[in-house]
Amino acid sequence: MTYKDKSEPIEVRVKDLLSRMTIEEKVAQTLCIYAKKGNFQDEQGHFDENKVKKLLLSGAGRIAEVGFVEDTPKKMAELTNKLQAFYLEESRLGIPVIFHEECLHGQMVKEATSFPQPIALAGSWNPQLIQDVYALVAEETRSRGGHHALTPVADVAREPRWGRVEETFGEDTYLVSKMTVAATKGFQGEKGNFNTKKNVIATLKHFVAHAQPEGGSNCAPVNVSERVLREVFFPPFQDAINEAGAMSVMASYNEVDGLPSHKNKWLLDDVLRKEWGFEGFTVSDYYAVYQLKQRHNVAIDEKEAAFQAFSAGIDVEMPFDECYHHLTDLVKEGRISEAYLDKVVSRLLAYKFRMGLFDDPYVDPEYADSICGSEQQRSLALKAACEAITLLKNDNEILPLNTSKIKTIAVIGPNANEVLLGGYSGKPKFYTTVLDGIKEKVGDTIDILYAEGCKITEPGDWEETDEVIASNSENDKKGIAEAIKIAERADVVILAIGGNALTSREAWNEDHLGDRPSLELVGSQNDLAKAMVETGKPIVSLLFNGKPLSINYVHNNIPAILECWYLGQETGKAVADVLFGDFNPSGKLPISFPRSVGHIPSYYNHKPNDRRGYLFDEVSPLYAFGFGLSYTTFKYSNLNLEKTHIDKNESTRLSVNVENTGNVSGHEVVQMYIHDCVSSVTRPVKELKGFEKVYLKPGETKTITLDITPKELAYWDAGMNFVVDPGTFNIMVGTSSKANDLKTITLTVIS
Amino acid sequence: MTYKDKSEPIEVRVKDLLSRMTIEEKVAQTLCIYAKKGNFQDEQGHFDENKVKKLLLSGAGRIAEVGFVEDTPKKMAELTNKLQAFYLEESRLGIPVIFHEECLHGQMVKEATSFPQPIALAGSWNPQLIQDVYALVAEETRSRGGHHALTPVADVAREPRWGRVEETFGEDTYLVSKMTVAATKGFQGEKGNFNTKKNVIATLKHFVAHAQPEGGSNCAPVNVSERVLREVFFPPFQDAINEAGAMSVMASYNEVDGLPSHKNKWLLDDVLRKEWGFEGFTVSDYYAVYQLKQRHNVAIDEKEAAFQAFSAGIDVEMPFDECYHHLTDLVKEGRISEAYLDKVVSRLLAYKFRMGLFDDPYVDPEYADSICGSEQQRSLALKAACEAITLLKNDNEILPLNTSKIKTIAVIGPNANEVLLGGYSGKPKFYTTVLDGIKEKVGDTIDILYAEGCKITEPGDWEETDEVIASNSENDKKGIAEAIKIAERADVVILAIGGNALTSREAWNEDHLGDRPSLELVGSQNDLAKAMVETGKPIVSLLFNGKPLSINYVHNNIPAILECWYLGQETGKAVADVLFGDFNPSGKLPISFPRSVGHIPSYYNHKPNDRRGYLFDEVSPLYAFGFGLSYTTFKYSNLNLEKTHIDKNESTRLSVNVENTGNVSGHEVVQMYIHDCVSSVTRPVKELKGFEKVYLKPGETKTITLDITPKELAYWDAGMNFVVDPGTFNIMVGTSSKANDLKTITLTVIS
Repeated sequence: MTYKDKSEPIEVRVKDLLSRMTIEEKVAQTLCIYAKKGNFQDEQGHFDENKVKKLLLSGAGRIAEVGFVEDTPKKMAELTNKLQAFYLEESRLGIPVIFHEECLHGQMVKEATSFPQPIALAGSWNPQLIQDVYALVAEETRSRGGHHALTPVADVAREPRWGRVEETFGEDTYLVSKMTVAATKGFQGEKGNFNTKKNVIATLKHFVAHAQPEGGSNCAPVNVSERVLREVFFPPFQDAINEAGAMSVMASYNEVDGLPSHKNKWLLDDVLRKEWGFEGFTVSDYYAVYQLKQRHNVAIDEKEAAFQAFSAGIDVEMPFDECYHHLTDLVKEGRISEAYLDKVVSRLLAYKFRMGLFDDPYVDPEYADSICGSEQQRSLALKAACEAITLLKNDNEILPLNTSKIKTIAVIGPNANEVLLGGYSGKPKFYTTVLDGIKEKVGDTIDILYAEGCKITEPGDWEETDEVIASNSENDKKGIAEAIKIAERADVVILAIGGNALTSREAWNEDHLGDRPSLELVGSQNDLAKAMVETGKPIVSLLFNGKPLSINYVHNNIPAILECWYLGQETGKAVADVLFGDFNPSGKLPISFPRSVGHIPSYYNHKPNDRRGYLFDEVSPLYAFGFGLSYTTFKYSNLNLEKTHIDKNESTRLSVNVENTGNVSGHEVVQMYIHDCVSSVTRPVKELKGFEKVYLKPGETKTITLDITPKELAYWDAGMNFVVDPGTFNIMVGTSSKANDLKTITLTVIS
Repeated sequence: MTYKDKSEPIEVRVKDLLSRMTIEEKVAQTLCIYAKKGNFQDEQGHFDENKVKKLLLSGAGRIAEVGFVEDTPKKMAELTNKLQAFYLEESRLGIPVIFHEECLHGQMVKEATSFPQPIALAGSWNPQLIQDVYALVAEETRSRGGHHALTPVADVAREPRWGRVEETFGEDTYLVSKMTVAATKGFQGEKGNFNTKKNVIATLKHFVAHAQPEGGSNCAPVNVSERVLREVFFPPFQDAINEAGAMSVMASYNEVDGLPSHKNKWLLDDVLRKEWGFEGFTVSDYYAVYQLKQRHNVAIDEKEAAFQAFSAGIDVEMPFDECYHHLTDLVKEGRISEAYLDKVVSRLLAYKFRMGLFDDPYVDPEYADSICGSEQQRSLALKAACEAITLLKNDNEILPLNTSKIKTIAVIGPNANEVLLGGYSGKPKFYTTVLDGIKEKVGDTIDILYAEGCKITEPGDWEETDEVIASNSENDKKGIAEAIKIAERADVVILAIGGNALTSREAWNEDHLGDRPSLELVGSQNDLAKAMVETGKPIVSLLFNGKPLSINYVHNNIPAILECWYLGQETGKAVADVLFGDFNPSGKLPISFPRSVGHIPSYYNHKPNDRRGYLFDEVSPLYAFGFGLSYTTFKYSNLNLEKTHIDKNESTRLSVNVENTGNVSGHEVVQMYIHDCVSSVTRPVKELKGFEKVYLKPGETKTITLDITPKELAYWDAGMNFVVDPGTFNIMVGTSSKANDLKTITLTVIS
């Protein structure tokens, strides 16, 4: 049979296979099976062929998250092999199955290497690092039999109340775009072939505008105009498709302008395919086809939901078949043409051929066991964690800690000895808490004391706990009293506070909430901070959280603050490296920290006629986008443009000298912002349009050059054309987005 | 000359006059002069002809707010007569001038009758009352020489942080629309002629979407889609034009989708004129043409700003000429055609003819003096104030106060003895504070004690004070201690707290702020409330504020709460009438009260896939839209539809019996909400689509009928057509928007 002949081109094989398939078999390619133990196994946990045979009827396209059935590398690889063999050998045409996996910051399974959350990775401002991280995630995932990662999140996070901010690369379109491109390259490989069995298909999600839900309520409407879509939310998707060849796109739960994304043909077809030339496949978010009926009330039943989603451009329903089995009838009734079904199924099959699943479908369980979450992966996890840590405050250069003067350290706080991975996490082989990391680093010479102080929430597991119980304030009072005693015995207090995987998470339904109407520290943490301040001891505060928090008390009263986000398995090691100066922190905030929830939206790239000011409060953020200190200082000079006057189709190049004017080596992230001074529609006061991370020794100066092409200068004008206007542009460069941190040079575009 | 012949039709007179005018004279009709003493008067305050002659060069169209020069009724009437005479007699063609005035809740001048703020008027849910109020405002305004009111505000208030919420009729499109139509009819008269000299031109503002600025920051961008404009923000404007013949529209400061309204031709021409058939004239908001350059950065200079605004459809620049003198050159250069200028000037002149200014231009100063703010107007002001008061809580029927059991009342709080009018207020002849009103009502028989307790802000005047200084907390502590002593001597405490005209106001620039990032009570007011609660005395809390506040402590601890907004000059009388049962409160909230600023947006008419819930807090509002208690109770029964199945072009009618099941007479506002159960784009969970205020004696039952026409059922579908979908509609009726307060009946629309 031609389709089984690997010497034939993929198009030929797909066409041949398709010609042999019934409508039911074609529709089955659009379906998914959710991995549950009962679906594949008998009560003793043994593979049950009869159960799997039944599933063939409802879906031969793909299987979701096999890790829920078998979760160690070896057993998971064995199970995927077994299921694959079954599909190849037992199904009528021997069509293999795709295994998809959650890979937000490491595969979401046991013994996968756990990296920092995307919000933390973005804080590194290091696209190559992000590419390396996701290449490793891809290799681990593929080794267990996975083919398709439901990652990266390409959303631009503009709503800090939302519980999923940690899954994003932050608030800025340009930065998110660079990171999404890097992650996609990491997953898929630069060349986009899968011969080495080290890469997987990347999924850009959630298309589109998912990260600015009304009221911060997960999946709530996003009422923005087409212009905001094009300026803010589209570019990371478009760039990852054009620059990294992203092969899959997941639609978002939310509606934009009254249209749920899963029925938005303009979005999924006119923009994604016709305008951007996307040739990959689309998938639904979990249950989102059914939600056209259940939550959005735009479909009267499951069949209508299937019709709307499939004809709008959703190729695959996930995680299991609630609606898409109706496609068979819809085709037979002529509401959906078989030609359209063929087009969709052809591209789904093409990826099974490209992935080599017809020809070389199995993985090596021993190899999986040898690499997944192994010792050899730890250095990259540590590097990523170190680069993510952001120094927000360092009065009197209290950091790095001078070990020669310290005899006793009190490690205090609810996050001091906790496993803090954030959402969509597996269970890594290794994990070092802050307390562990500090002990390991200096425990031989310095006394390390510990007190929890208070809790953030009563114990729970993010995956399984629906109800989140705030800490018991009476118990917290006792804990704080105990912590005071401990702190009083120390020379310095390390105070680890923030959030955890319960206080900000995906609110997947009304019984499993995760969004908050406040950005304040949860529970008694401010009381703990006050108690520590009142001891008079020097304090370093470590913040672990997935999104900006309003930490006014901490900022106003504690001399040193490190934003640690969630750093993955090497948390404690990375924190210790930074605390004691073995790593000079270089992270920059990928999202603004508003002073309070009442200050949102707080993104820096607002329009000129905005942020007029508030009564009784500052309108500026507590910490600006792009902000982050170092143990050294940098001086910018010789700001220059290769050409100061260009034609609107021309490019120019900014150059600036950056000098390390301090005493230690360190990285600086040189940031370039642009403002179009007069334009036909309003334009942000500034927008990030270039950056470069540079390493400088003390006294060293490097010249950084950043390209300014028409893409960096253009915008969507009143007629929705992407154009460069003649006129003046302010080109700003410096160490953060704050006006005081930027030097400006003027570029003139002549018509 | 034909144009001076009043027997000729207006079109003929306009055409004749226009044919005699130079370009400069035509352009002058688009200009405005801001009334300042120095513009019209010498240093001794005498009318100075030479100064006025100079002004002729820069504007003969209109004069803004003469009250800033002479503010009593008689003197103002005399000044407008004098200026008018000057224009008629001294200008080359004798073209009269229009005087425009701020009339938000009474003309914004001395000795005008002061009514409740629009947010309070909307709380009456009584359109006839609103019409009567603005008819009286119109009569007073016209008597002083004014022709054109810069009122009503047709904005739908969806952002409680915004300082101008009090100027609106609330958060609901339908309610705002009904109130805007009523106000327009009040200003202009039902017949739209001006022969009686009792009416003025109404201005619908701010076109469009001004009341949902990003971050609550005044004039900030409103990033909504066309659908939201059509569903939420357009209808009050369209209805007031179509149903009440509104003659003037003011554009808004904000941008929508990158386009500042003052250069939005789609809005001002395609929608307003071509789609809705608006034949009146448009005006700029103050300085907003200039702000195209200065704030929005979409015009490179004043000339370009003039070009953009005028060609987009802004007929008049206000309050003085910053840009529009450039129109002369723009016409001469051919960038704007003289034909277009003629069209604009023709309609501006037509209103001067319609207003009778060529034929009968003067007013009677004695008449102005006799009616403005006079004793005879007080009853309507009192009625409006009474109907606005909303009973939010009344545990144990503490209200109305039982005078037979009370010997001493303590009137406490920063708003107990203050003049509380809110923004855009004049200085009325009469004003009764809460303390005055209570004394007047029961002071003969009950001891009335008073303590301020604390301040809200240090004293200031809203018109002149830029800086707002929060109260001094040390002084507040002393005041609270004093208040405790006073309260302890009383049988009941009346606690008057809330905001004032400084804590929420129009933030007209960076030095004059008015928006807040918090909805909490300002200053020490919660401490005062706690101190009062701790006395153990029964407490009635009176809230005076222009927008929803987060009053969780008050709600949780004080048994009776009256929302009083700003009630105008009869504040104290109205409050006393309600406190002692002479008026049974019937107000209903025209806007939701969120539990905190982190809960916004809080409007009730959200989409189905929204408000999933928050961690550690309720997602519901503290007080729902449409909510308000009474001293009696009402029972709804016999919910019925005239036809339960209709064609999509048909109408039906809801009927419901409402019975007063309590012991006192009272008004109930019967509210009808509709939800389209399945629709092509998402639709709100419910939308107000009808209401009626009914008066019932104890035991009395009335049958209320509410029409359901295609207009109530239709929506803007995916293709942006206004259609009725076949299918099921839930018709809900009851006493508030809360689900528990509504009974539902199903209507089926057959295709």
